[in-house]
Amino acid sequence: MNWNEAYADRMSLIGDTAVIELLKLSERPDVLSFAGGLPDAATFPMEKLKEITNLVLNEHGSMALQYGPAGGYTPLRELVAQRMKVLEGIDAKPDDIMIVSGGIEGMDLIAKTLLNPGDIVIVEAPTYLTAFSVFKCYDVEFVPVDIDDKGMLVDQLEVQLRLLEKQGKRAKLIYTMPSFQNPGGVTMTLERRRRLVELAERYSIPILEDNAYGEIYFDEPPPPSLKSLNPEGVLFVSTFSKIFGPGARLGWINAPSNVIAELCQAKLGSDQCSNTLAQRIIYEYGQKGFLESQVVLSRSLYQTKRDIALNCLVANAPPGMSWTRPAGGFYIWVTVPDGINCSSMLTWAIENEKVAYVAGPSFYSDGRGVNQFRLCYSFLDQSLIAEGVSRVCRAVSHHIETRPRSRN
Amino acid sequence: MNWNEAYADRMSLIGDTAVIELLKLSERPDVLSFAGGLPDAATFPMEKLKEITNLVLNEHGSMALQYGPAGGYTPLRELVAQRMKVLEGIDAKPDDIMIVSGGIEGMDLIAKTLLNPGDIVIVEAPTYLTAFSVFKCYDVEFVPVDIDDKGMLVDQLEVQLRLLEKQGKRAKLIYTMPSFQNPGGVTMTLERRRRLVELAERYSIPILEDNAYGEIYFDEPPPPSLKSLNPEGVLFVSTFSKIFGPGARLGWINAPSNVIAELCQAKLGSDQCSNTLAQRIIYEYGQKGFLESQVVLSRSLYQTKRDIALNCLVANAPPGMSWTRPAGGFYIWVTVPDGINCSSMLTWAIENEKVAYVAGPSFYSDGRGVNQFRLCYSFLDQSLIAEGVSRVCRAVSHHIETRPRSRN
Repeated sequence: MNWNEAYADRMSLIGDTAVIELLKLSERPDVLSFAGGLPDAATFPMEKLKEITNLVLNEHGSMALQYGPAGGYTPLRELVAQRMKVLEGIDAKPDDIMIVSGGIEGMDLIAKTLLNPGDIVIVEAPTYLTAFSVFKCYDVEFVPVDIDDKGMLVDQLEVQLRLLEKQGKRAKLIYTMPSFQNPGGVTMTLERRRRLVELAERYSIPILEDNAYGEIYFDEPPPPSLKSLNPEGVLFVSTFSKIFGPGARLGWINAPSNVIAELCQAKLGSDQCSNTLAQRIIYEYGQKGFLESQVVLSRSLYQTKRDIALNCLVANAPPGMSWTRPAGGFYIWVTVPDGINCSSMLTWAIENEKVAYVAGPSFYSDGRGVNQFRLCYSFLDQSLIAEGVSRVCRAVSHHIETRPRSRN
Repeated sequence: MNWNEAYADRMSLIGDTAVIELLKLSERPDVLSFAGGLPDAATFPMEKLKEITNLVLNEHGSMALQYGPAGGYTPLRELVAQRMKVLEGIDAKPDDIMIVSGGIEGMDLIAKTLLNPGDIVIVEAPTYLTAFSVFKCYDVEFVPVDIDDKGMLVDQLEVQLRLLEKQGKRAKLIYTMPSFQNPGGVTMTLERRRRLVELAERYSIPILEDNAYGEIYFDEPPPPSLKSLNPEGVLFVSTFSKIFGPGARLGWINAPSNVIAELCQAKLGSDQCSNTLAQRIIYEYGQKGFLESQVVLSRSLYQTKRDIALNCLVANAPPGMSWTRPAGGFYIWVTVPDGINCSSMLTWAIENEKVAYVAGPSFYSDGRGVNQFRLCYSFLDQSLIAEGVSRVCRAVSHHIETRPRSRN
């Protein structure tokens, strides 16, 4: 069998093995890694998890290992609907909620349900790199819209939408992470959120709002979600990975109930239903209020880590290096002077400074970001962050000093 | 937002809500249901699961809730490789194994990795109904090949492959469940298995071997797997749903390591990785030998249930009703006289006899199977199977007596 001739065309589009390589790097004990976007395991509720799991196995019995409905375990859907009300002010009913096998599956099901080959997906530039792994499988075209420290540039979005209209085209989906964006670390202002939902409504384009980090805020909650500003037009995806633990592989979608019904159809051919045991564990955990107490501790831990990273950048960064100041989430987005290639600098940094990050181009649909990179401060042990950031700054300083004169 | 205009074309292909409706029926307490293909919860290892889960949470700590590699937890891949050797005689290495979120995800990842729009997939007729939910999402064409009580008719397959060749076409995948087929309940003979892998090799067509029920044999193991007859050309998919419990949503693929690498790429955009906690639980459970002891009890339980169902069919079936005699697995495939529509009979049977099954057409790509249906004997309580089968027979008798004379 000649397997190289057997692969579908889409496989040539998703060949970027960056994420797999990153996870390998993050496992090398001699490297301080700001690469993988992993939560700090110190936030995981291991002691409570033991109690809750025993409770589930005792009280739910064998139902905890049986197949469940495609849309999820009904009490968990009710709990999530209740949380959407409290956290986002959204009047969600259980039929508007679907439990999925993590936020990525939520995005994949939305893509499967909405996107034909050749459809246009609007993405932020830079955007979540795994979003490319999801959407590229559906053979779509990307139209990037830049972000600044107030989130997506909605003026630029409007220009793009008009341009597409002139060309007789229409975008099929707008993908955005308005709060504590991955990788930008920026948060969209309320004013821009309002304009974004107005534009999407005017052009009849569904919004996929990725709220992966929305609950991990530091000083104050982010502005109201896009979903709360237009419940009918926004598909809201979130995850238990950052507020419980990613190993549970659970998240949810909040969407109009007729869309949820279609998404459930799509899920039957993806994985039939989500992990039943984990759904019941998170339900019991959540209904005792433990999600809320866990997230309070997580916010505090990640805020401390952010502070250490930002302070160390201020103290050590060479002139010409700039970065975002996240008010929540896991990420700082760094820009260095033109002429520095952050992909080749990464190889150098791992070798010479034993430190790792993710180079910028993985976060763009069009190869930009050569002089940018993402620092994830969530995973590295608190005691190592300052040392790690110093090493990053030394790598950048070295590359500023040695960059080709012609590129200055 | 007009959502009805927003859906992708593929959604019109997967609109058969049969499975969702079935699961609802199986929950109605007044109906004896042979519909859903659920395992008997009595086989689930609840007591051992408590011990093992506590052990995993104590010994693996927070790693049990962290992200894991796309290919799966390495010790579990090693355990599965070892089992493939013992059970199937296959010299699998851990890199040839990938842990997936259930057998359906395994099939979906293979489809994503191999199938372009318009590609031809050969399926058995009848075949597993959820296979249509998976493959239809990739906009493929089906070429059905009939089965009899010895499995797929390989002569018919050869005719079809020649016909496609004459038309300048080539099938891209052969999907088969050679052992204890769902829904047919039949097992492919060794002679046909040999001819099938030869044909597939000659025409360079990958085989997707679905082994969901292969370990649930009654008197003797099934013939050697297709994978063991041609390790390079067969993608072997199996599941822990029937040998542990479906709520864990875990299964595996055994394929050449270069194909596994592509499948891992595809998984990054589907759900990133499989449930970490469940992987570690099944690893600990399996390496203590508990999978093997559980499956011995499962075989015995399902054999008893099959015997009750078959005996009751012999005693109560009207003339003209015929059925298969499964040597393993969960299903009996029933054929009734022409002129009886088993879909409308199902509505009648639920109403008048309080019994349910799945009507035949859901298992065909071309609308056949009107006078056929699937009885799943695995889930219904043992004490209710005889009564349930009697009800089915009464429904058939009633419809034989009242069918239109003109159709005789």
